[in-house]
Amino acid sequence: MKDETAGHQAARVQSHLDQVLAPFGDGPVAQAMRYAVSGGKRIRARLVIEGARLHGVADSRALWPAAAIEAMHAYSLVHDDLPCMDDDDMRRGQPTVHVKWDQATAVLAGDALQSLAFELASHPDGAQTDAARADLALSLARAAGGQGMVLGQALDIAAETASQPLTLEEITHLQAGKTGALIEWAACAGPRMAQADRAPLASYAQALGLAFQIQDDVIDAVGDAATAGKAVGKDATAGKATFVSLLGLDAARARAETLVEQACEALSVYGDQAETLRALARFVISRNS
Amino acid sequence: MKDETAGHQAARVQSHLDQVLAPFGDGPVAQAMRYAVSGGKRIRARLVIEGARLHGVADSRALWPAAAIEAMHAYSLVHDDLPCMDDDDMRRGQPTVHVKWDQATAVLAGDALQSLAFELASHPDGAQTDAARADLALSLARAAGGQGMVLGQALDIAAETASQPLTLEEITHLQAGKTGALIEWAACAGPRMAQADRAPLASYAQALGLAFQIQDDVIDAVGDAATAGKAVGKDATAGKATFVSLLGLDAARARAETLVEQACEALSVYGDQAETLRALARFVISRNS
Repeated sequence: MKDETAGHQAARVQSHLDQVLAPFGDGPVAQAMRYAVSGGKRIRARLVIEGARLHGVADSRALWPAAAIEAMHAYSLVHDDLPCMDDDDMRRGQPTVHVKWDQATAVLAGDALQSLAFELASHPDGAQTDAARADLALSLARAAGGQGMVLGQALDIAAETASQPLTLEEITHLQAGKTGALIEWAACAGPRMAQADRAPLASYAQALGLAFQIQDDVIDAVGDAATAGKAVGKDATAGKATFVSLLGLDAARARAETLVEQACEALSVYGDQAETLRALARFVISRNS
Repeated sequence: MKDETAGHQAARVQSHLDQVLAPFGDGPVAQAMRYAVSGGKRIRARLVIEGARLHGVADSRALWPAAAIEAMHAYSLVHDDLPCMDDDDMRRGQPTVHVKWDQATAVLAGDALQSLAFELASHPDGAQTDAARADLALSLARAAGGQGMVLGQALDIAAETASQPLTLEEITHLQAGKTGALIEWAACAGPRMAQADRAPLASYAQALGLAFQIQDDVIDAVGDAATAGKAVGKDATAGKATFVSLLGLDAARARAETLVEQACEALSVYGDQAETLRALARFVISRNS
């Protein structure tokens, strides 16, 4: 994928988030919200924008659910980093929110970012029809909640104290919730806005989401903290089962590559128009942070 | 207000919440979600149902936003009780979620309850039109987020470490966010579902919300923990400004009564049909828990 396009899209998403957060004032929670939505690779936002383009939805409209999914992702990271959860001090090369402010501010900023995600997903300047706005909100709630992302996080925490490591099937299920649900929502936001068939983008996203998590495990196993922008090697130290510990490094990488091929094939109905999404899938397994 | 009606409505809301939470499984987070939405006075749910009745919206539809606002309220309590926030061990006469389980479960259960609130508010079996479903989700996001409830909570936390106690004006502003925003959303959900004028119910809710908080301060000042179901006297011990500390007990009670009268008058356009909402307003300042 061309860095120019990716960088341009990321900048537009950032600018949109800055704009919607401007009226929130300058209290510590508002400051922490802005801090938490800054930076990052914007993969989820780009999935929204590219999926929307494939269905003739204007970027100016797609920016709303694109910003929504980044706010939702940012909230999940802020809460995930809390001392009672993963207890991480660094994220994207910067101190985490509870380190830079305090735990109360981190809880509240995360809470407000989740609300903001729904405000953006259901915003009248986003999807053109009321049906699509309502559908974006409803599907986002299901993807984020106790049967989606939070379920994955809960399984992840339970795994830390389990008497034996998870199996490959269990980890795949865990990740489908923890990482996969929001990635699928992002890829499907475009067809939702156009009230079109979501099946090809859903298949793409399911394969991509799993590849994404396998690559995260690879980075955790072989990466260095400076490049990753966060602590690495945590899973091995904690004795947690990962795709790398279960499959071995080479087989994990091969599996991620196969999944990315599957993801690209799922887009065949879109022909050449989907090249950017295919490049994005290949980027996911080439990244080292 | 007739206890029969109130009890019946509360039971229907509980049964609806039980039903929507059934597919969430039996993990600790799902159990904690069920625990957190159990009990309570269901004042917000009753505001939704009664406001909906005034606009010809069937109870079977109003139950969806009614359950939504109770899920949202429950999430706010679970996070508010956390050690890094208000650090409360008891709620509704029971151990709080982080005491009964642990902090990670409390963070995740609160997070999932917020998602659930949006799932219920935008549910197709709730509001009859897509426009109303989208509007319920959007307005709920604004009421709950960093310019509504979370802003109030943030101001409340900031007040604890401020060099001087808040003024009456500042406390009124704080409470308009912390308690008022969700109460107003609840009262206005009916006219939103019917796409009707919200002004009378909004005025009612603004006066009621403030009366509600003044009564909470009265309970904290004069109540006992066994009746209140939670710790009392915390504000005075912490040297926090409250409506009672600023106005004195008698004037605070008188102010709450005046506000309830104003709330009842705001409903004049509905005539006798609004008697239940008037009784609910009077109940708010007669309660001792």
